[in-house]
Amino acid sequence: MNETTTDTEETVDPAALAARLAEELPADIAEALNEQIPQVAAAILQNLPLETAVAVLDTPSLRDAGEIIEAIPRDRVVPMLSGMSADRAADVLLELDEPVRSDLLGRLDAETKASVRQLLIYPEESAGSLMTTEFVSVPATWTVAQTLQHVRMVERTRETVYAIYILDPRSKVLLRALPLRRLISANPEESVLAAAPTRRPVTISPLASRDEAARLISKYDLLAVPVVDGAGQLVGIVTVDDVIDAIVERQTEEVQRFGGMAAIDEPYWDVGLAHMIRKRAGWLCALFVSEMLTASAMQGFQGELEKAIVLTLFIPLIMSSGGNSGSQATSLLIRALALREVQLTDWWRVALRELPTGIMLGSILGVIGIARITLWQMFGLYDYGSHWILVAATVGVTLVGIVAFGSMVGSMLPFLLRIVGFDPAVASAPFVATLVDVTGLVIYFGVAALILHGTLL
Amino acid sequence: MNETTTDTEETVDPAALAARLAEELPADIAEALNEQIPQVAAAILQNLPLETAVAVLDTPSLRDAGEIIEAIPRDRVVPMLSGMSADRAADVLLELDEPVRSDLLGRLDAETKASVRQLLIYPEESAGSLMTTEFVSVPATWTVAQTLQHVRMVERTRETVYAIYILDPRSKVLLRALPLRRLISANPEESVLAAAPTRRPVTISPLASRDEAARLISKYDLLAVPVVDGAGQLVGIVTVDDVIDAIVERQTEEVQRFGGMAAIDEPYWDVGLAHMIRKRAGWLCALFVSEMLTASAMQGFQGELEKAIVLTLFIPLIMSSGGNSGSQATSLLIRALALREVQLTDWWRVALRELPTGIMLGSILGVIGIARITLWQMFGLYDYGSHWILVAATVGVTLVGIVAFGSMVGSMLPFLLRIVGFDPAVASAPFVATLVDVTGLVIYFGVAALILHGTLL
Repeated sequence: MNETTTDTEETVDPAALAARLAEELPADIAEALNEQIPQVAAAILQNLPLETAVAVLDTPSLRDAGEIIEAIPRDRVVPMLSGMSADRAADVLLELDEPVRSDLLGRLDAETKASVRQLLIYPEESAGSLMTTEFVSVPATWTVAQTLQHVRMVERTRETVYAIYILDPRSKVLLRALPLRRLISANPEESVLAAAPTRRPVTISPLASRDEAARLISKYDLLAVPVVDGAGQLVGIVTVDDVIDAIVERQTEEVQRFGGMAAIDEPYWDVGLAHMIRKRAGWLCALFVSEMLTASAMQGFQGELEKAIVLTLFIPLIMSSGGNSGSQATSLLIRALALREVQLTDWWRVALRELPTGIMLGSILGVIGIARITLWQMFGLYDYGSHWILVAATVGVTLVGIVAFGSMVGSMLPFLLRIVGFDPAVASAPFVATLVDVTGLVIYFGVAALILHGTLL
Repeated sequence: MNETTTDTEETVDPAALAARLAEELPADIAEALNEQIPQVAAAILQNLPLETAVAVLDTPSLRDAGEIIEAIPRDRVVPMLSGMSADRAADVLLELDEPVRSDLLGRLDAETKASVRQLLIYPEESAGSLMTTEFVSVPATWTVAQTLQHVRMVERTRETVYAIYILDPRSKVLLRALPLRRLISANPEESVLAAAPTRRPVTISPLASRDEAARLISKYDLLAVPVVDGAGQLVGIVTVDDVIDAIVERQTEEVQRFGGMAAIDEPYWDVGLAHMIRKRAGWLCALFVSEMLTASAMQGFQGELEKAIVLTLFIPLIMSSGGNSGSQATSLLIRALALREVQLTDWWRVALRELPTGIMLGSILGVIGIARITLWQMFGLYDYGSHWILVAATVGVTLVGIVAFGSMVGSMLPFLLRIVGFDPAVASAPFVATLVDVTGLVIYFGVAALILHGTLL
């Protein structure tokens, strides 16, 4: 393991630091550069051998790559960009503003320019934007020996060779994928097509989502999934390392959104205090304003509250139970939808299942709640008044209703969000809790009105 | 893309189904078998060619593999187990009870038995339990041509060849990792050591966590990370596909725990209603019982509640704000700790940062809350009484206090859990909310006592 930490002194000698870093692994150099301002990082990169600088720029964990690129003189940066893998170069160029982006793109050699341009047209988060155009393909008419010779020639390519893609010599349609390992053990004289597996490879459309790419790679244990266009022609490959980065990024987003905040894609310490507060304040304010409806609801029940102050004691308990059951159901269904265990059209089957589940869970909590009130009353720990049995019944019945309601809302919300085109992960736990809170109060006071009518109310 | 769905009729003809499935990809066959009971799946497997059956059993998405293995006659299952990759065979054997496990283990050939035994000794979720022992290693004295010949010979191995590991011929210590692609382009006459990169490979200890394996593979863009023991000897490799499965599994666990429930590792539809209720009821009851403290706290403030019923109106609003800010901070720190952006020893730096953040966020909500009360009062939407300004001040000051407190508790809890040896992901949003709720009430009535003393209270 090579983990480098660099002192963050005020004065950094880029040349000295570059000399010290040159022998490290690219990911470790990137980590060291992340601790410097982009101008210093740019100076260090220029002091590294070109091949190393390219490898560092190719590392997705390098931050502010766009700013670093901008801080390097144009004549020095063009060879670096040309050396980078096309998918990463496109990502970095996307970080730049015009006219710098077009200017740099214009200076690249024709082949790189074409690759990068092609990648820039695909929508963000699509398989097309994630893919690399640097793959090894050969016509189906070649022999194993010819193919081996070709692989030796293109070895200078920086991205790993995952498989050899065999194309129809005329239509360029993808026919087969041949693992490198099979190529090595094949008879050099035989046709490359004969050496390949007999099955057409699993492929993906450039417009499919990156989650779909991750799912295919994970399901079929692939090192790369070929991206083919409508005509069946190979336009690129999505590799397993790009997918891992995408999965980790998505996981962070999901947890943060679930925690009720806009996703922050920078490391904790890199986010300025003001930026952090802005990212968190937005959601917090939105939830706060929605939750204000609880105050309005309470105001509507002021009469009941004044007559039966004992009811207020259980408001926090009842509201949190609704929120908890809702966030359970949401977390369960978000994952089930993401992993394709449940389809969108299954919503009614899920509803039919969550309703009895919620009623059972609510009944369990209701029994505990009634037991709590009864015990406190019996042992004289608190006096809930002469109608304590009715108060306990109100709490118990309310819990059944609110937990069932919370489970229903929590399980249906991911479907609803998906149908209207949102990512279900925005159905964060606090969001569900807020939705359930207001209704919970209405259920509580509705049940109270029914049960306590003529006694307390 | 090959996605197969199988009718789940009552009567299945295993031979016919096997014939239909034989041409599918292993992952798709596994998906089809998942829709059958283990006994039927076992019958189908026996009707598939041995090589295909082995590939299906090797697919991690195949469920109840243990039960399927048990349902196949011993003489038929032993060749299947011997054909499987050692790491997957060990996983499947772990699902079996004694004496079946030892009986099957005893029937395997010596080499497989030794590999599986070795894997069974490593703790669950360790790199050692995740690794495969089927890697290609050669002594440093070999030439490129000898190594190529060796790779051709071992091509029958089912797991992909990721790299050639070069060992010291005497001590067997791992010296270098040589990518297959580099082996192909190297001069056949030269030493394999000369063809390899000049750097020692990134390695991992068998006792390291699977998260650490995932982190190294992701950081250094590896296809596999070699696992070496204390003496520097290569004992196995953790491959990228095992790590992806581990990441996806962990992500599911994290979201579910964050949603406040025990992790369910089976797909939604496979979990029986009773099992589902049990999994969810445990956490829900635990949270409910903790949340009962709010009722106790409210009882303690009964005097204040009776005097100033207007205070009850804002209880849900205030409590949810504390919970939301807490779950924000928790989700942020859980990820930062998991991604190693923040170290355990950084807890005080985080506290120093969350305190001003929380105070700022609380002030924003406080201002909104005061504005809401003022507007409603001004426009006659509701009458908060003659002391409405003091009530508004109470709500505003409480919000600052509770949001700051929520952010502190939410951010420190993941550290605390990690220190006492728990996974920080158990610091689920509802858990934080429950913690903050009770304290929130105390803060609210404390602030009210200070501000409203002599007027309402």
